[in-house]
Amino acid sequence: MDVQKIEAFVRVWAALLLLLTACLVGLDTQSKYIFYVDRKITYKELHALGSVFVSRYLGNSKGSYRYLAWVSYLLDQMVVYIAFGTNSAAVEHSVLALSGMKEFQWMKWCNKFTRFCFQIGGALVSGYAACALMVLATSISAFNLFRLYSSEKFLRLKSA
Amino acid sequence: MDVQKIEAFVRVWAALLLLLTACLVGLDTQSKYIFYVDRKITYKELHALGSVFVSRYLGNSKGSYRYLAWVSYLLDQMVVYIAFGTNSAAVEHSVLALSGMKEFQWMKWCNKFTRFCFQIGGALVSGYAACALMVLATSISAFNLFRLYSSEKFLRLKSA
Repeated sequence: MDVQKIEAFVRVWAALLLLLTACLVGLDTQSKYIFYVDRKITYKELHALGSVFVSRYLGNSKGSYRYLAWVSYLLDQMVVYIAFGTNSAAVEHSVLALSGMKEFQWMKWCNKFTRFCFQIGGALVSGYAACALMVLATSISAFNLFRLYSSEKFLRLKSA
Repeated sequence: MDVQKIEAFVRVWAALLLLLTACLVGLDTQSKYIFYVDRKITYKELHALGSVFVSRYLGNSKGSYRYLAWVSYLLDQMVVYIAFGTNSAAVEHSVLALSGMKEFQWMKWCNKFTRFCFQIGGALVSGYAACALMVLATSISAFNLFRLYSSEKFLRLKSA
């Protein structure tokens, strides 16, 4: 099977899942209470969405392939860590909203806004699925970059 | 410069920084209030610490090098995402402790326990520095793995 097809498939699915996550968070309202932190995540994930496509576009171009492979690799790394970090932060926030924290006198909220919290939970699952796919995409871009190099000498190109 | 030396250098520093993070969090007490979530992170980071060395050890062995390179790569990926995810969750928790959250009626705590919060802040900075080094180590292990493969055909070994 062609690596380019696999990569395109993985990237499209990651982008769709990120979009689903953003929609689930953005369209989630149950009352006048607003989860400010979760809103911030929507915004950041939409940024990540753009980068997933930019990286794909660059990886696909011809000419001075090695530099584009480096750009694609570094961009992929950035996107996957931003998406993963924001997702983890959202999980931490959600766990606190779910269970509260007695030591801090922080009350729990999800017993009051059940449907809202379920939707956020779905968004987080979808976000992690997107992250898993992006990790795969990152591996493929690492593969595309590093196989250009010699297996004997450090950072020496194969053609050199 | 030798790639093995760079890799060893990066891994030792990442491990030291993780250890520093764990110590900063673990030895941080200012009163009877305990940050349960931050304690959990200590525990997970100590796990990560072990894996940093395991991965180094495997990457260094001889014989059936390709399989060991795969194990090293996958282990590195796991460790870096676990450390990064827990660190991001801790940052989210710390931001909430620092600023509180009016919408949830969650009060801020860091104005009451200033020294404690500064130490946690230092731990988080050290944790992120360790993550950055581990990302570098992961790139090196990806390099060591993928340069074994042919640059023309997908997942075909060079020697084949």
